[in-house]
Amino acid sequence: MTVSVLCGGVGAARLLAGLVRAVPPTEVVAVVNTADDMVLHGLAISPDLDTVVYTVAGAIDPERGWGLRDESWQAMATLERYGGATWFGLGDRDLGTHLYRTQRIAEGAPLSTVSGEIARAWGLQLAVLPVTDDPVRTRLTLADADGSPGEEVAFQDYFVARRHEVPVASVRFAGAETASPAPGVLAALATADTVIVAPSNPIVSIGPVLAVPGIREAVAARRDSVVAVSPIVGGRALKGPADRLLRELGHDDSVAGVARLYAPFAGTLVIDHADAEHADAVRAAGLRCVVTDTIMRDPDAASALCKVVLGQ
Amino acid sequence: MTVSVLCGGVGAARLLAGLVRAVPPTEVVAVVNTADDMVLHGLAISPDLDTVVYTVAGAIDPERGWGLRDESWQAMATLERYGGATWFGLGDRDLGTHLYRTQRIAEGAPLSTVSGEIARAWGLQLAVLPVTDDPVRTRLTLADADGSPGEEVAFQDYFVARRHEVPVASVRFAGAETASPAPGVLAALATADTVIVAPSNPIVSIGPVLAVPGIREAVAARRDSVVAVSPIVGGRALKGPADRLLRELGHDDSVAGVARLYAPFAGTLVIDHADAEHADAVRAAGLRCVVTDTIMRDPDAASALCKVVLGQ
Repeated sequence: MTVSVLCGGVGAARLLAGLVRAVPPTEVVAVVNTADDMVLHGLAISPDLDTVVYTVAGAIDPERGWGLRDESWQAMATLERYGGATWFGLGDRDLGTHLYRTQRIAEGAPLSTVSGEIARAWGLQLAVLPVTDDPVRTRLTLADADGSPGEEVAFQDYFVARRHEVPVASVRFAGAETASPAPGVLAALATADTVIVAPSNPIVSIGPVLAVPGIREAVAARRDSVVAVSPIVGGRALKGPADRLLRELGHDDSVAGVARLYAPFAGTLVIDHADAEHADAVRAAGLRCVVTDTIMRDPDAASALCKVVLGQ
Repeated sequence: MTVSVLCGGVGAARLLAGLVRAVPPTEVVAVVNTADDMVLHGLAISPDLDTVVYTVAGAIDPERGWGLRDESWQAMATLERYGGATWFGLGDRDLGTHLYRTQRIAEGAPLSTVSGEIARAWGLQLAVLPVTDDPVRTRLTLADADGSPGEEVAFQDYFVARRHEVPVASVRFAGAETASPAPGVLAALATADTVIVAPSNPIVSIGPVLAVPGIREAVAARRDSVVAVSPIVGGRALKGPADRLLRELGHDDSVAGVARLYAPFAGTLVIDHADAEHADAVRAAGLRCVVTDTIMRDPDAASALCKVVLGQ
């Protein structure tokens, strides 16, 4: 049983932590969003790749949901002394990952190679692949008070600095048109027994993965074997601005909205019991609908969810 | 009494820590070597500038002589997990300085501006100026076993990674020809009541400062007011490879050798009692010679030395 997973950050990472308990980890390929990546303080930072690796390795900070557990913040304290930009927290342990990635990329190593090195150093056996080695960056045009398009900002400016509390008029993925899938990504999607769309933000996590030329087509070609897990539970995003973004960009912020968005490339949508009333609307969108417990309280719960997903 | 000081790292930093006790700090301008600077892990690292600031601020690690006291090494531990380059130690607190400098330079701020910001953040009142805002980099050609020129390496590769234990055939300062003095440097040298040449390595610390076009001429124009402190004490470098480099590059590794090297631009050489026997040789090179205690055990000793220097 080989499985490829389209991944954003936290939700995907939790699903993967369960998946590697449900199937042999060597049979799992994570295809991870890179459109949240940025260069800050000169360092190449890949938040979703790191969240996936740290989570599957059991090293993620459980309270924050990002970065490493048992973290210290000495570098940030010095940066604060200078009045430097501390809005994006970089723990001391975590900094070592960014130093390594930055140096390797400066040496000419592709991000996919470096991501594999980092995953192996944490003892992981699954493949952790960026969707592309080319720079793709999410840019959000904020909505002015009257709803008209305003300032365009980078993803982390929206997500972290503005705490995703500002209305969005539109989203684009700069660089996507000319990006190519990273080595191994298309083959993994073509040969997997099941392709899972992780319960990540449909707009800014799954969206940019699908925007890399060839990915959406490769997934759609496997539509019958593609199982998406809804990031909307009980009508809301468990974490982050998925519901809000869906609404602001003209979609229905329910599992039915997700179903209509995913219908062209996914054959099945797994939704939570809390959304069971919308199962018919999901089916009306042309997807099989599976109702189960989708809340991944711990890796065991995630593993149970994965077994349901893989049973489809 | 205004004082400008040509500076390398540790020796210069200790002298400055004494100087700001001997004269008002606002009257002191440190003109600091940048040819040891490098980009590592994507970060802009300026070892001599940081050693000067940390030392004068009383924040330097007293045992290592570089980096910050009460330092932790979490980032390096993570980097080691990946098999990354850990030969150049970057403490967690220290990393904040490099993050800040890198970000500011990426924003377009000149190194001199950033160095001033960093110095002020540590509460320093003296001016800490890089000799130039342009990239100047020391390159050393190592000597093969038969003495012929071999591989050319960067400064930190020689100094840290190879622990300055390998013979050197020649030294050059890449980029120096096209570099310009940083804003304020030439004015400080022209107007200072005294110009001090700190007890830094004549070849790889003072050498690249003088190699920036206009600096050697500006110092030579003030020759009668230029007082150098010998980095050679008791016939040897107190720290680092100054004696060895002098010898390998065909100079005399004594205070007399330093005197002959500095004679074109310095009117006075201050030497230690341990080298008193060479005072006549210093005078024969055309410099006044002052014999005193030059070992800066603490800022008070450094301050006493500075009072002797400024008395000349």
